[in-house]
Amino acid sequence: MTSVLWILFDGGGDRPRNGATPFFAALKPVIDKLASLGSCGIMDPISPGVRPGSDTSHLALFGYDPYRYYTGRGAFEALGAGLELRPGDVAFRTNLATVDARGVVVDRRAGRYVAPEEAKEVEAIMARIGEEVERKFGVSVVYKSTVEHRGVLVLRGAVSHKVSDTDPHKTGELVRRSQPLEDSKEARTAADVVNYISDAFTAYSKELEANRRRASRGEPLINAVLVRGGGYMPSIEPLRQRYNVKGAAIAGVALIRGVARAVGMDLYSAEGLGGTKFDKFEEAAKLAVELLKRYDLVFLHVKGTDSASHDGDFKGKVDVVERLDAALRPYEAVLEENYVVVTSDHATPVSVREHTGEPVPILLYGPDVVRDDVAKFSELTCWRGALGRIRGMDVMPTIASYLGLSEKFGE
Amino acid sequence: MTSVLWILFDGGGDRPRNGATPFFAALKPVIDKLASLGSCGIMDPISPGVRPGSDTSHLALFGYDPYRYYTGRGAFEALGAGLELRPGDVAFRTNLATVDARGVVVDRRAGRYVAPEEAKEVEAIMARIGEEVERKFGVSVVYKSTVEHRGVLVLRGAVSHKVSDTDPHKTGELVRRSQPLEDSKEARTAADVVNYISDAFTAYSKELEANRRRASRGEPLINAVLVRGGGYMPSIEPLRQRYNVKGAAIAGVALIRGVARAVGMDLYSAEGLGGTKFDKFEEAAKLAVELLKRYDLVFLHVKGTDSASHDGDFKGKVDVVERLDAALRPYEAVLEENYVVVTSDHATPVSVREHTGEPVPILLYGPDVVRDDVAKFSELTCWRGALGRIRGMDVMPTIASYLGLSEKFGE
Repeated sequence: MTSVLWILFDGGGDRPRNGATPFFAALKPVIDKLASLGSCGIMDPISPGVRPGSDTSHLALFGYDPYRYYTGRGAFEALGAGLELRPGDVAFRTNLATVDARGVVVDRRAGRYVAPEEAKEVEAIMARIGEEVERKFGVSVVYKSTVEHRGVLVLRGAVSHKVSDTDPHKTGELVRRSQPLEDSKEARTAADVVNYISDAFTAYSKELEANRRRASRGEPLINAVLVRGGGYMPSIEPLRQRYNVKGAAIAGVALIRGVARAVGMDLYSAEGLGGTKFDKFEEAAKLAVELLKRYDLVFLHVKGTDSASHDGDFKGKVDVVERLDAALRPYEAVLEENYVVVTSDHATPVSVREHTGEPVPILLYGPDVVRDDVAKFSELTCWRGALGRIRGMDVMPTIASYLGLSEKFGE
Repeated sequence: MTSVLWILFDGGGDRPRNGATPFFAALKPVIDKLASLGSCGIMDPISPGVRPGSDTSHLALFGYDPYRYYTGRGAFEALGAGLELRPGDVAFRTNLATVDARGVVVDRRAGRYVAPEEAKEVEAIMARIGEEVERKFGVSVVYKSTVEHRGVLVLRGAVSHKVSDTDPHKTGELVRRSQPLEDSKEARTAADVVNYISDAFTAYSKELEANRRRASRGEPLINAVLVRGGGYMPSIEPLRQRYNVKGAAIAGVALIRGVARAVGMDLYSAEGLGGTKFDKFEEAAKLAVELLKRYDLVFLHVKGTDSASHDGDFKGKVDVVERLDAALRPYEAVLEENYVVVTSDHATPVSVREHTGEPVPILLYGPDVVRDDVAKFSELTCWRGALGRIRGMDVMPTIASYLGLSEKFGE
């Protein structure tokens, strides 16, 4: 069986600095050999000039129009945290935070580090609040802690995601009251529920064992939950139905796991693959190659390039690319028997430290793919290639066609 | 502050003749240096093969889908003439013309030259007719003379632009009666108003002092107003809201000024910049560079390339490009600190003398833009460049992204 390994360097695209970009500077013999054997090009993740988020970009890359399917980050984050969402569920991202006696936010992250046993305690309080909400509003509540101070909050029932955040997004301000953003009963109910949870959490947080410990050590208390980024879970036809592609995603980042799951990919984790620029890729590469035997598409998400970019760390970004390439080296022969796609979901230039809207390089290798004369995967070279300039939404149909899996349109 | 200077050669694109195009033949060291330092490509102003008007093309270039926002030339021409239009206003282009006693058009331009004092007299008569229309139909009328025999007519009230022209578009035919083109009260009213104005103008024109003079010299009389190209003023979200870009346009041509104004750009004029192939660009270049300090985007419209094309004047077209380049020479250092876009709104090949549908060259220079190996801005070279093939609608998002002004779509 021929399959596709798709390596995605999050925020990998960059702008030239002293004549080089991180992709250009990186020593990456495996990827560059694939570039020299296959087709290269440039890709606008959404459309030229549009600055994508990682969520909208991944939707487009998986072949789903983000203008239709993107419904706010909350839903994808909740999926990524392993919650089962149904179409119509409303989800929010949350922060555990520290407020003073008047309700002014003192620390938006409650010291950032939240120990696993503290997170458990918080989940228990949230379960209790959930029961009250269910009785009072007829709305089901699920809360889950994810990483450090972060969590997701899901509402199921006659609720809308069109409500404002309680998170003031800065310290020194009062926790906000959630307001309905449309004139509907569902929005009013959702705002009431969010405000109820916000109030109840601060009230019940006095009982947290964690806060007794934190108070004794002079650490920031966990006494508020800030809610933001409401979105609803859209109805998404799975990859397998839409493109006839059976896909697996290896990713460490909740948001990307959420998007992959939303489109019906199976999720995998690998040791060393967290989401930082220090990630190690040996286990991820090994797993990816194994999964090629069982899946049409194996999607390997590398977050480190984006993390390094947000730090303005050119060298760190180069290192991530080089470490990934080195991890692929034992499997060169296998890769050359399959298809390989290498690209990025958006540029995050180290000089800008934010997502930008220019196209990113893309490489498509396959035993029967046209060979152009690009021999290096980078922003400075791929524009010469045989793929020309394509869009994120073009990738999945291309993959499905090379794998011989897609339906013919017409006779 | 980093800004963008956008130089637009109207009708600048061309087809090869004896191995060269005007852009290829022109000695333009400033533009070609920017080409060699930046990215080049080709651009379909609307989409491949579509022959754009200057109005539809400029809408697309400013980032507004012309299939949605183009509503007939009248509205943009009226805006360009300095009239204040509100969404829903209906505007027509008009010609002052000469008809014989039966109403047959003898000269569609009343000798073409209309002196400023003649235009004033015409406006006075139109103001009187406007009062009558207001009383009779409850519709406000504004008429303004623009250049020579041309003018604009704006109707405000319960009227539709879906009415036929009174202009027969050739001599030897009767002035037409405007007909409603849809079954609505608004269209019927508009047709009635247009016909009333047409009749009244011919009747009142007997009193024109201008006609006494013209008659005594045997010149064509101004005794008809031909109405054509009805359009309504669409509701357009300004550039500043849509792309977060503060724009200025330097242009001498009413239609282009109208489009720029419709999208919320501030309008500027420069001495020497009229709309002919003999225009001089020193003042325009100086003003453009000054405005770069205060605007995110400075759009400089060069009409002369189109004018020369319609005359079939290859050499004249080359001269326009060379004069513009020479005018930029004192500002090379400033330009290299900013972004520069050079392109055209459509091809007008000197061999065809009309707008055609092939792509035009485009150049994007910036301190952090990928440098390709195109060293000359022309149809014969830019297709090799790093921008690939884009569309007119892609330019504004690209500019907004490089300036760091656009919103991220997603997280």
